[in-house]
Amino acid sequence: MRVVSGMRPTGNLHLGHYIGVLRNWLELQEKYDTFFFVADWHALSTKYDEGLDLKELSIELVKEWIACGIDPEKSTIFVQSDIKEHAELYLVLNMITPVSWLERNPTYKDAMAQVEYKDKNNAGFLTYPVLQTADIILYDANLVPIGEDQKPHLEIAREIVRRFHYLFKKEDVFVEPKELLTEMPRLPGLDGRKMSKSFNNAIYLDETSEDIWAKVRQAKTDPARIKKTDPGHPEVCIVFEYHKAFSSAEEVKEIENACRAGSIGCVECKKRCAANIENIVAPIREKKASLNDDEILDIIKTGERKAKELASKKMEEVNKLIF
Amino acid sequence: MRVVSGMRPTGNLHLGHYIGVLRNWLELQEKYDTFFFVADWHALSTKYDEGLDLKELSIELVKEWIACGIDPEKSTIFVQSDIKEHAELYLVLNMITPVSWLERNPTYKDAMAQVEYKDKNNAGFLTYPVLQTADIILYDANLVPIGEDQKPHLEIAREIVRRFHYLFKKEDVFVEPKELLTEMPRLPGLDGRKMSKSFNNAIYLDETSEDIWAKVRQAKTDPARIKKTDPGHPEVCIVFEYHKAFSSAEEVKEIENACRAGSIGCVECKKRCAANIENIVAPIREKKASLNDDEILDIIKTGERKAKELASKKMEEVNKLIF
Repeated sequence: MRVVSGMRPTGNLHLGHYIGVLRNWLELQEKYDTFFFVADWHALSTKYDEGLDLKELSIELVKEWIACGIDPEKSTIFVQSDIKEHAELYLVLNMITPVSWLERNPTYKDAMAQVEYKDKNNAGFLTYPVLQTADIILYDANLVPIGEDQKPHLEIAREIVRRFHYLFKKEDVFVEPKELLTEMPRLPGLDGRKMSKSFNNAIYLDETSEDIWAKVRQAKTDPARIKKTDPGHPEVCIVFEYHKAFSSAEEVKEIENACRAGSIGCVECKKRCAANIENIVAPIREKKASLNDDEILDIIKTGERKAKELASKKMEEVNKLIF
Repeated sequence: MRVVSGMRPTGNLHLGHYIGVLRNWLELQEKYDTFFFVADWHALSTKYDEGLDLKELSIELVKEWIACGIDPEKSTIFVQSDIKEHAELYLVLNMITPVSWLERNPTYKDAMAQVEYKDKNNAGFLTYPVLQTADIILYDANLVPIGEDQKPHLEIAREIVRRFHYLFKKEDVFVEPKELLTEMPRLPGLDGRKMSKSFNNAIYLDETSEDIWAKVRQAKTDPARIKKTDPGHPEVCIVFEYHKAFSSAEEVKEIENACRAGSIGCVECKKRCAANIENIVAPIREKKASLNDDEILDIIKTGERKAKELASKKMEEVNKLIF
């Protein structure tokens, strides 16, 4: 069974990515034939006007994947724009994808309702799910790890596959991708807002231990707790959210009881939280520092060769059919 | 000065194409650096469900171009889908092209108002002008021969070029294409309706002399003219339209006078018309019969090499800028 998944190279990875995506990828690569790609063309669809150095960000992203434990011996790692067949298949699929399918896509409708996306209503943004479809069916992906909110995208992918088979009168050119519904816990920022670079409320995967502490120290806790002996309410405390994500089940239980009993102070609680985060980040940070760009470029080159072989074979089959 | 123009491989060429496009291309190749391409991806945008053999139709189309006098020594002839850079640039340009520009395109609005196009409202149809833009700016086309109705498409092409330069902060990556406004006389079908294969009212460029006569003989003339001596009205006569397109200025004048005076019968007039059409078609028909597929494939291969070199250089420049 093959699993294909991508990530946009839009900046350093933080704990939110680790919890939401990478921890899952690590499990997947043990069980499946995994293809992980840097979605650099996708990054353009909303970030085209930010002057990002996508080349550098792509190398950085793969470096962080490897640092987290993604293993190039187990997973095929490549950069989307190195495989021109994504663009070619995207063009072909656009020819048979009704505009109405794309306009009805909830993600698109939501985005169009938000002011920040109003001027991003480009053809590439509208047809984003078509490029995603090309990304996965090019490699006969059986499974795509997604969260609940991305189900409509995968539905579009399957409909495009069916329509292609119907129009070109041949079955089984593509595999209909199934979703691998994954709980993708969304970690809030340390101030309780959405985790975002611009809010400075995220802990990055290459953060120093001092900076981890400096950030956790300022995290938002239960505002009703003034003195250490006041009974706390873990359910409204951001630090407790982090404990749930990064501390052991017993420690979470212990912290919860102590907080409610007013027997542990917020500073001590934060120290223990920071220490557990450090336990996760330290090996990633150190592994990342030990990797150089050339090694990463080699990994990408190797993945590119494998991806290219499959993609070009698939497009040969497609072109024989449509021309 | 470079001129780029394409034609969709959707079936045999007829006199309408000759008058409207090819006669113009023949002139252009004497004056400019001409690139003529078979727009096979474009053919998919509305013909994806007709099971056309686009490979064969593409060879046939180039064969007819050559038969008409398009000279591979003077013009670069290639097939769009052989140059993957068209798809790649199309994808990139989609990322920066507002959907509203495409929705406002009059050709698109007109098509959507017609029942026959209602179910062709695919993403590829909506983004047709983006692919056209890629087709021409990939080769630094200075001039694009178009009719009045295509002016909005070229306007979109120029706006995309300007937006690209603005967003990626570099001028002169692409040339802003200018229109070479061309009078493209639209030849009516022999029955007065739009020329179309399904109406059987067109004369093809490989038509036999017998068939030319059989078709012209049935052409629609002035219905008020019953007897040869009735004064005719050339302005309502389809055959007279054909005389204007294919007979010499003197002959046109003479026919007009004789018709109005009632001194020439419709049969004689049609015979002279058919003879003049035969004078044009005969050498094309014979040249076409003398060409074999291998020669055509060679011509396409040669053109592909030249187009590929330019296109890949251009995409290298683009990719350096956007990634």
